[in-house]
Amino acid sequence: MLFDDSHRDTLYNIIFQRRDVRRDFLPTPIPDDIILRLLTAAHHAPSVGFMQPWDFIVIKDPSTRRKIKEGFLIANEVSADKFQGDRKSLYRTLKLEGIEEAPLGICITCDRSRTGDVVLGKTIKPEMDLYSAVCAVQNLWLAARAENLGMGWVSILDDDVLYNTLNIPRDLNIIGYFCIGYVEQFQNTPDLQQFGWQDRRPLKDAIHFETWNTK
Amino acid sequence: MLFDDSHRDTLYNIIFQRRDVRRDFLPTPIPDDIILRLLTAAHHAPSVGFMQPWDFIVIKDPSTRRKIKEGFLIANEVSADKFQGDRKSLYRTLKLEGIEEAPLGICITCDRSRTGDVVLGKTIKPEMDLYSAVCAVQNLWLAARAENLGMGWVSILDDDVLYNTLNIPRDLNIIGYFCIGYVEQFQNTPDLQQFGWQDRRPLKDAIHFETWNTK
Repeated sequence: MLFDDSHRDTLYNIIFQRRDVRRDFLPTPIPDDIILRLLTAAHHAPSVGFMQPWDFIVIKDPSTRRKIKEGFLIANEVSADKFQGDRKSLYRTLKLEGIEEAPLGICITCDRSRTGDVVLGKTIKPEMDLYSAVCAVQNLWLAARAENLGMGWVSILDDDVLYNTLNIPRDLNIIGYFCIGYVEQFQNTPDLQQFGWQDRRPLKDAIHFETWNTK
Repeated sequence: MLFDDSHRDTLYNIIFQRRDVRRDFLPTPIPDDIILRLLTAAHHAPSVGFMQPWDFIVIKDPSTRRKIKEGFLIANEVSADKFQGDRKSLYRTLKLEGIEEAPLGICITCDRSRTGDVVLGKTIKPEMDLYSAVCAVQNLWLAARAENLGMGWVSILDDDVLYNTLNIPRDLNIIGYFCIGYVEQFQNTPDLQQFGWQDRRPLKDAIHFETWNTK
């Protein structure tokens, strides 16, 4: 089928209004049919050799989320200490996760051995399986935004916390843990831009024509 | 803003009808304003610490695409030899790239040192910058589909071919090379499923509740 201008504009709106959400979560439960829609969207990501290496662990239990939050607190102390002076002070003011406030957590893993040792499209670039699983993350993120759900990637967390808490086999790779929930509001600009941590790079600086550094 | 059911369904349609396109490309040029819209969508991907580590090299020159195609042919010979018997025969029948037929190529890189040595959110999980750049890939892919453009990821290609042909500094990482163009048609099912290489995994097999392997 062909999409028209209004479909295209809808996608661009969803892309532009997606945020990495770590605050303003509401406790409102997310209906199971909506969670299933999110995961169906993630499952339709592209994957190298069609290996679909991802799995999704759906976490609602507050005691599980409490353990993951404890893991974040430890990792965040270590992380804050890597910054100096004003940056360190600013870092400590930022809200960087919503593990306990958001009623839903999803952990995405990658099974690098799925479909066997030799995978079409992965013969030259072995990281393609991990990258496929990340494409599923972005589908999930856009689906969440279209469902008016905030989602945030909690990357300040040792993988060991997730392996242990969620009983994940060690031969899988952990892609990420994501907090998802309804929110009071979506911010117009990313928090890190809003609070003076990092500006948006001008797009023109990122575009090159024909070869590197040809503008 | 809040999205409604029709917006949500539009996103899901785009996600479900996106394909990894390697054939049926038309030579029709893609207007520059459309290319800019694609890259704007990619540039609005999430990124760890808002580091926006990606760059986009836009390639139209047929002689450049010819060189990249030569790189694919070498890599594909090596790759075919990794399969045995019927799989090897089937592999050789598959069309796995559209480098020369598609009028547009985009190479996406990742600058892992952008914004400095210590990056918020990357202190514990260093691969987050690469994963951010892959989120940009998926935004690009969905934007292309919404613009009725086919896009394929050419992963059977040594990174050296791209470093050399596109004059990319060696301290950057190459995420991928993508073929983009209008197409005669979009396939309803992925080629690898259609031609009996790999089936779609049932979604229910990928979903776990609360901990690994709890269905």
